[in-house]
Parts: sequence; structure tokens; C-alpha cells
Amino acid sequence: MQFELTREYIEQLRNVIEKKEEEKAIAMMRELHAADIAEIYDELNIDEAKFLYLLLDGEKAADVLAELEDDDRERFLQVLPSEVIAKEFIHYMDTDDAADVLADLPEDKKDEVLSHIEDIEHAGDIVDLLEYNENTAGGLMAKEYIAVNIDWNVATCYEEIKRQAEDVDEVFQVYVINNDELLKGELTLKDLIISKQETKVTDIYIENPVSVKTKTESEEVANLMDKYDLVSLPVTDDIGRLMGQIMIDDVVDVLRDEAEKDYQMASGISEDIEPTDGVWRLTRARMPWLMIGLVGGVLGARVIGLFEGDLAKNAATALFLPLIAAMAGNVGVQSSAIVVQGLAANTIGIESVFKKIMKEISVALLNGLACALVILIYNLIFSDSLALTISVSISLFIVIIFASIFGTFVPLALNKFKIDPALATGPFITTVNDIVGLAIYLITSRIIFSLL
Amino acid sequence: MQFELTREYIEQLRNVIEKKEEEKAIAMMRELHAADIAEIYDELNIDEAKFLYLLLDGEKAADVLAELEDDDRERFLQVLPSEVIAKEFIHYMDTDDAADVLADLPEDKKDEVLSHIEDIEHAGDIVDLLEYNENTAGGLMAKEYIAVNIDWNVATCYEEIKRQAEDVDEVFQVYVINNDELLKGELTLKDLIISKQETKVTDIYIENPVSVKTKTESEEVANLMDKYDLVSLPVTDDIGRLMGQIMIDDVVDVLRDEAEKDYQMASGISEDIEPTDGVWRLTRARMPWLMIGLVGGVLGARVIGLFEGDLAKNAATALFLPLIAAMAGNVGVQSSAIVVQGLAANTIGIESVFKKIMKEISVALLNGLACALVILIYNLIFSDSLALTISVSISLFIVIIFASIFGTFVPLALNKFKIDPALATGPFITTVNDIVGLAIYLITSRIIFSLL
Repeated sequence: MQFELTREYIEQLRNVIEKKEEEKAIAMMRELHAADIAEIYDELNIDEAKFLYLLLDGEKAADVLAELEDDDRERFLQVLPSEVIAKEFIHYMDTDDAADVLADLPEDKKDEVLSHIEDIEHAGDIVDLLEYNENTAGGLMAKEYIAVNIDWNVATCYEEIKRQAEDVDEVFQVYVINNDELLKGELTLKDLIISKQETKVTDIYIENPVSVKTKTESEEVANLMDKYDLVSLPVTDDIGRLMGQIMIDDVVDVLRDEAEKDYQMASGISEDIEPTDGVWRLTRARMPWLMIGLVGGVLGARVIGLFEGDLAKNAATALFLPLIAAMAGNVGVQSSAIVVQGLAANTIGIESVFKKIMKEISVALLNGLACALVILIYNLIFSDSLALTISVSISLFIVIIFASIFGTFVPLALNKFKIDPALATGPFITTVNDIVGLAIYLITSRIIFSLL
Repeated sequence: MQFELTREYIEQLRNVIEKKEEEKAIAMMRELHAADIAEIYDELNIDEAKFLYLLLDGEKAADVLAELEDDDRERFLQVLPSEVIAKEFIHYMDTDDAADVLADLPEDKKDEVLSHIEDIEHAGDIVDLLEYNENTAGGLMAKEYIAVNIDWNVATCYEEIKRQAEDVDEVFQVYVINNDELLKGELTLKDLIISKQETKVTDIYIENPVSVKTKTESEEVANLMDKYDLVSLPVTDDIGRLMGQIMIDDVVDVLRDEAEKDYQMASGISEDIEPTDGVWRLTRARMPWLMIGLVGGVLGARVIGLFEGDLAKNAATALFLPLIAAMAGNVGVQSSAIVVQGLAANTIGIESVFKKIMKEISVALLNGLACALVILIYNLIFSDSLALTISVSISLFIVIIFASIFGTFVPLALNKFKIDPALATGPFITTVNDIVGLAIYLITSRIIFSLL
């Protein structure tokens, strides 16, 4: 049953914890999924959470640990002895979760925990997984999967599944390998069930399944599983030997994190934060962009300062400074967002950079004309100065085209150099466009005012 | 095998199509997944795509149709007679995909297609699904699932799975219902395989699985499946009868669309667009925000206009107009992004609105102080005017606090009134903050200049 966390529930639980009523606390958590308990922990202080934690049995405690936010988990693990971590938690965890937990520990503590794992095969699998970069298929995969030999029949597959079922929680399909452990295909449990016991694997397996190498980047893994609607994905080494499998739920997290990161960067937030994080963390995550914005603003002020004489003569020019800067920023953010999103979702298309920029220029021409026209009509009605009217429209048009090209080009270029293009969307493009926009406006105004 | 779309491949294919070499075209597509073919279609014009499409056999053609972008699909269906749509495509589709395709057709064409579906049960299921709002669990679910009776044993389950296997492509688990069709639990295929034939369902099934009602919103469905790491989710009616199942791959699309939509709104893009869309569509999607920004800019100009006399006297005041407006916008976007993301990912926490705003004020005080201090030091060194120096710092501080509160409050309020809070992040908050920021700065300056 799903569970909705309420303030009443937390208050009630806090009460129970304060009075140290263990039985009641256990009863309150009995029906809950590990993910729910992890959510509850988020709302408690470390002592309250620890009290609850020690009431959980091994398997549940391990599941909760796997579900916790990274920082909450670190705080927990710091106060626990290595032996407890190994025997109470890692022992019950799948290899991928175990590797994630261990990867966050300091080097010496990690080794200590590993030395306390009793099941050497389990420990070996975890050590293998720790070798992979966490942003690759190797870092995402688990060693828990079921493989059957291509020479077997359905009955033998059944035996193998029964033999391995203890170690593997979720089985949706089994992988077909040959004697050299090379991945040859897949077999769904459904096909096993509907086939006769003597049917050969070769008659029912799916050849050439989608697979990735251990070093494939997680973003590509996520895109592949999304595109081909896969629930699990086999991972091989460079010569095609089956090394592990990735489940869709791990990839959902990758997709979500990726999307959140892009969104946060576009919004000028530099760390992965949540509304429940502390004041200091929230402040720190927001400070960098504000400082970049401030520097941009100061540079903008310098640019305007070069034209202070013009402004003293034609004070009305100042009215449209924020408009020009804002439009430059807006257009730049739009352009870069389209590129960033296209790159992330792999829908960027295969046309050349030149064609992409030409298309962007077409869009910019249309948008620029429309905006310039609207502001022209407004100023023709409301402004006394023809020079100002013309200056604003012409410079707005130029600014929109510049900002579009710049906003399209920068993320494409960053991507080319393997730098996360999302970095560009927020502060950088906005700030540069603001400054360049102001310069374009003030130069155009000086020229027009001197002509008219 | 996965497939990477290249410009070379498209050119080669175009060549083959131009020469009407059917055999070669079929050979080029033989190994491809429906999702790959759909991707290829994106790069072709309608005639080229149609040529290829008619070469595909029924099942593959139906799969491709399900994978196509909505607008591409609409273009295709417009040129096809209803009978062909019913017999060549809908016939091979799962009910959820079929309902999605039919939902996009005009009312009379939809009825015509439905009347041509030969399998009445299939048609009935599709009609049932068409009743549900597409943003609810009912709109996401498929009628293809396998249910077993709680009174059966494993052997009977096997028979049922074999009987239904023809209709259901992917089976990861079966649902357990009672004689009234009420959902009682779930049973994984793995548990079926490792159990003896005479084992009773009641001995191995999982009671009280996570489930949703047909009217549950898709965003909540996605959050539940993500949180509990589910691969499939049963859907019931209000009294608990099993109505359908939702698969994780459909929900991945919901999550992705949701994240993309939020990102696009934050970037000022008002329609769901991709870099490969046409110039006109891209322009149209970007125009609304630019117009809102323009109106905001004009209102800002009006506000500044009220202080034109002050600006003529102290032209240097104009230098910091864009800085103040930009910082107000930045801070507002940051604040609202944190709320929007927290609401979307359901990590907003359970503290009251008052507490959320108090926390935001604490963050704003820290950020505001830091920014005000930095600009104070800059101006003390570089500015001749003490009044300006003081005005900029004081108003920046006030503006940051105002923008933070406003940026936090608006999405929370929108959410309360069931309006998508992501609407707020982009244009609205930025524009209002810009204008208010300018007013705060100019009023503060007038006061300070009159005092010093």
C-alpha cells in the first residue's frame, strides 16, 4: 500500500520516539516500504532517525539505507562501525547498491568494510563494480542476473533459475550466453513458461538484443532504455562477455537527476538541492550565479558608463536599458535551452552546425521583426523622440539576432569539447548577452541620434 | 542491435527511395527497431516516409506508428483510409497505444476506424480507454495484462498464462484477483517458476501491492513508480476492481515530458518543441514569452519614466538599472525553480507555507547581504557618488528579499489553486520582479539623494 507522509504522522512518531516506545515505533513502520521510511528520516534529526533505524531488521535496514539521500546516508555511516556496515547492511544489499554505498566512504573505511564481508563472491563482485566510473554503464549495473547456456533446454533453464533465485530479487528475463560467456541473446520468462520443458533455448531466444559496454555513458544508457522501452539491459565487456545488467528503475533515477540538473542550472542553481535542505546549503547553491550576475551587472554598468554623456543629453535612452538587456537574456536562454534539451534527449537531429545556426537565424529574424515592430508602434504612439524610437527598434532587432546565434552556438561548442552544455544556459549566456545587448543599444543610439 | 542514425545513412536511404528500389529499402530497414524507423521518418519528407511505410509488414508498421511523434503521426493518418488504419495498424496495437492514436483523430474519423475493427473485444477495450482523461492512470494503462484467481494453484496459472500469452507481449508479473475481480495481490513470474505446480496462489502471492485508481493523475503515477521502483503498476476502479496495468516505459515518457515541459517553461518556451521542428513552429513557441518580456520591458520603461527628472540630474543612476533588474529576475527564478522542482519531484517537504517562506527569507538575507556588500565595495572604490553607492546597495538588498519571497510564494499559490506552478518560473516572475526591482531602486535613490 502506498503511504502519504503527513505532519500528523511525523508528530505522532516523534512523540513515540521521545518516550522510547519501541513496540509502537515498530508497529508504525511495519507496513511501510523502505522508500517511505527513507522519506520519514528526511524529516527527523539524526538521533531520532538512529533510534528508528536500530529497530529495523537487517534486510529492511539495508533497503532503507539504499533509499536514503546521499548526505543522510553519509551521516549514518559515519557513526557505525565497519563490521556492522558489512554484516548488517552490505550483506543484504544487491551489488550495485552496495557499490554505491561503499563508493561514498573514505578509502580506509571502505577497505575495512570490504574485509568484513563474509561472502567472498559478494565482496568480489562489489570490488569489481567499484572499478567502474559511476557515470558509466559499469557504474549502474548489478552483478545479480540469471544467465543460461545457449545449448540448454527449457527444463535446464528452470533448474538454473531455481538455483539462482535466492540471490536475484527481480527476474524479468534471463540472458543467453555461450561457453565463452559471450552474450548471445535474451529469453523472457514468459517465453520460458509458455514453452515445453524439452524446447531448446536456440528455438525461443531473441538474438542480438540491445546491449551496452561497461564504459558506455549513463546518459546514453538512459536514452537507449527509453527509446527501446527496455526494462533491463545487459552490459558486456569490450569483447562481448556478459558482465552485468542494468534495471530500468536505476535509469529512471539517472533521467530524473539529469533533467533536474539541467533545470537547476538553467535556473541558476549550482548544486543539487531540495527544498528541505538547510538554509546554508540553499544559500551556497544560489550564491555563484548571483555573483556572476553581479559581475555581469557591473560590467554592464561600465559599458553604460562609457555612454554617460549621451545619457545626460538624452535621459530617455535610459528608459529602455532594462528592456534591451532583458530581451537579450530571454532570447539567449530560449536558444540555448532548445539546444541543451535536444542534446540531452538525443533529438538534436543530424543536420550540420551550420544548418542549425541558419535555422536559428531564420527564427531570430521572425522573432526580431515582430518584437521590433511592436516596440516601434508603442514608441511611435508614446515617445516624443523619433531618434529614440528608431534606435530602440533597430537595436532590439540586432540584439535578438545576436543573442540567438550566441545562445545556439555556445552549447553546441561546449558539447563538442565534452563540457556539459547545460552549464551555458543559465548565467553565462544571460550575462554575456546582457552586456553585448547594452553595448549594441547604446552604440546604435549614438549613431542614430547623431544622424537625426 | 542498437542503431546510430547518421547523415550518410539518410543520404543512402534517400537515394534508394528516389530510385524506388523497394528490395534495397526493405533490406536497409530489416534489422531496425520500430523506434529507429520512427527516428528516420523524422528526417524524411512525407512522400519519402510514405514510400518506406508501405514496405513495412503489419506488425512493424503498427509499432512504428506508435513510436512516431504526434504530428508526424497525424500527417500520416490524414492520408490513410479508415479501414486501412483499423485493419493494418490498430489491429496489431496494444490497447493503450491504439487509444492514443485514436484520441488524436477527428471525432468522425475515429468512429469510422472503430467500426472497422474486427475483433469486438479489442474495439471494446479501446473504447473503454478512450473514456479516460489522458493525464490520468486510466489514460496511461493498457488492457493487456494477465490475471489469475486467488483460489487457483500454480499449474492453473501456467495454463492461464499460456492461454493469454498471445495477446500480451510483455509479462513480468500477473495480478491476483478474487471472484468479484477485486485486486488482491501480485505474483511474479519468478515466484511461479520456482514454485511447485500444486502450490496455491495464496501461499506465494504478494498482498496489498501498490496500486492506483483510474483517475489518479499521471504525475502521481510516475512519482509512485519511481519511488517504489516498480516495473508495472495495477490500476483499479473506485471499488478496487482490476481495470488495467501501467508499464514503466510509458511512465518514463511521462517523467521525461514533465521534466522537459518544466525546463521549457523556465526557459520561456511555451510549446513542446524539438530542435528538428520547423522554423515557424520554433518561432511560435518562443513568441509568447518575448511578447510578455516586451510588455514587462515597456512597463519597466514607464516606471523609469516617472523618474526621468532624477535620471537627468544624476545620470549615473542609470548605470545600475540593468543590474538591479537582472538580479531581481535571477533571484526570483532561483526561488521559484526550487519550489517548482520540489513540487514536481514530491520532495517539497511537509513544513507549512509560512515556514517555507521564513526559510526563504533567511536564505535571501544571506544572499542579499553578500551581494549588497560586494557591490558596496565596488562602488566605494569606483564611484564618485556616495548617494549612488548607498542607494545601489540598499535597494539591491531589498530587491533580493522581495524577489525571493515573491518567487517562493507565487508557485506555492498557483499549486494551491491547481494551476501548474511551472508556469510561474519563466516570464511571469521575471517580469514582475524586474518592474518591482526597478521601482524599489529608483524610489530608494530618490530618498537617499534627497537626504545626502
